[in-house]
Amino acid sequence: DLKTALAGGEKALVDILAATHAGMTTDEFEKTVSDWIATAKHPKTGKPYTSMIYQPMLELLAYLRANGFKTYIVSGGGIEFMRPWAEKTYGIPPEQVVGSTGGLKYEVLADGTPVIVKTKELVLNDDKAGKPVGIQRHIGRRPIAAFGNSDGDFQMLEWTTKGKGARFGLIVHHTDAEREFAYDRESHIGKLAQGLDEAPKRGWTVVNMKDDWKTIFPAEK
Amino acid sequence: DLKTALAGGEKALVDILAATHAGMTTDEFEKTVSDWIATAKHPKTGKPYTSMIYQPMLELLAYLRANGFKTYIVSGGGIEFMRPWAEKTYGIPPEQVVGSTGGLKYEVLADGTPVIVKTKELVLNDDKAGKPVGIQRHIGRRPIAAFGNSDGDFQMLEWTTKGKGARFGLIVHHTDAEREFAYDRESHIGKLAQGLDEAPKRGWTVVNMKDDWKTIFPAEK
Repeated sequence: DLKTALAGGEKALVDILAATHAGMTTDEFEKTVSDWIATAKHPKTGKPYTSMIYQPMLELLAYLRANGFKTYIVSGGGIEFMRPWAEKTYGIPPEQVVGSTGGLKYEVLADGTPVIVKTKELVLNDDKAGKPVGIQRHIGRRPIAAFGNSDGDFQMLEWTTKGKGARFGLIVHHTDAEREFAYDRESHIGKLAQGLDEAPKRGWTVVNMKDDWKTIFPAEK
Repeated sequence: DLKTALAGGEKALVDILAATHAGMTTDEFEKTVSDWIATAKHPKTGKPYTSMIYQPMLELLAYLRANGFKTYIVSGGGIEFMRPWAEKTYGIPPEQVVGSTGGLKYEVLADGTPVIVKTKELVLNDDKAGKPVGIQRHIGRRPIAAFGNSDGDFQMLEWTTKGKGARFGLIVHHTDAEREFAYDRESHIGKLAQGLDEAPKRGWTVVNMKDDWKTIFPAEK
């Protein structure tokens, strides 16, 4: 029931994904994701999902890395879902992907082959207050800068920018219905309200996609 | 009851540590560890624990990094216990430390300060079959080479060396009672039996510390 699932927001989707993929090995799951991402198209734009990324984000990642930063993805999406394509798409290797995390179990098959099997347990819902937890668990230090686009990123931005010394927080506001999408306070997925309300007093930069971004998507290759 | 705890092996210690540190913030815990490691001495040798590391291990880490490898610690010890000193001691930054992992909870204090608090939950016992799980969770790909010294490393060595292509597995056998310690099959902590039995048929290299290591500890600074 897609409508009910979407109404439940990100958490409901994470639960569904954990339940439906339990029993697959990590190798099988990686292959399934890689096959899917290679062919799937967004229903509205008709583009591959890996093309629906933001040119300014790519430029920012490159700029940070050129200046000695280590860049991470910290997403509410499943960690094993993002890893197979994050390096090719964003230049971010598997070990720098933080995401919602299901249980894993190590097993040795009868022929001696070891496998790691996904279980239905949810180890981390990497959203809202789960994001600083995921950051601490995987990175073990507080970020210098964080970039988000929904209230799922609020605590990550808070944790980052409350650190001592120079810190930077930024929210991308999806305001461009023509070139991309426009949504914020009323959206079940990617809701952005508290971030908009508190950004000024917290010193976070809000990017108005429609006005501030000359280019949204990378040029077709 | 130290004797009972030690008889319970590593798992009992991990449980005790998780229970006793619940409620501390990660910042407080890091400070406690840093203060302790700066002054604590090994009861037998009288040396700081950070001096009781292996010169051949330091040389190996440097050699691997000089050849483009990313080096990780994957330990049964607590991840937050090792991070404060792993970089200075081994050149391994916090995000490349994998270890036994307790629960974490993000909270905002009344004055607006965010903290991450340790809970008593055990998220990962990074030992035996838990090591490949920790590796998958944190690194997201199979190692090329793995190095261990107890049966707690068996599954990590198995997972690593059963991968396709060139792989390398090595076990350090503590055989030098004079310069270090000698223990293997009967030890509650650091037991090594299955690894010794199966190393030959699995193609793992066994280092006999007494015979193979010219130097054990780094020169005093």
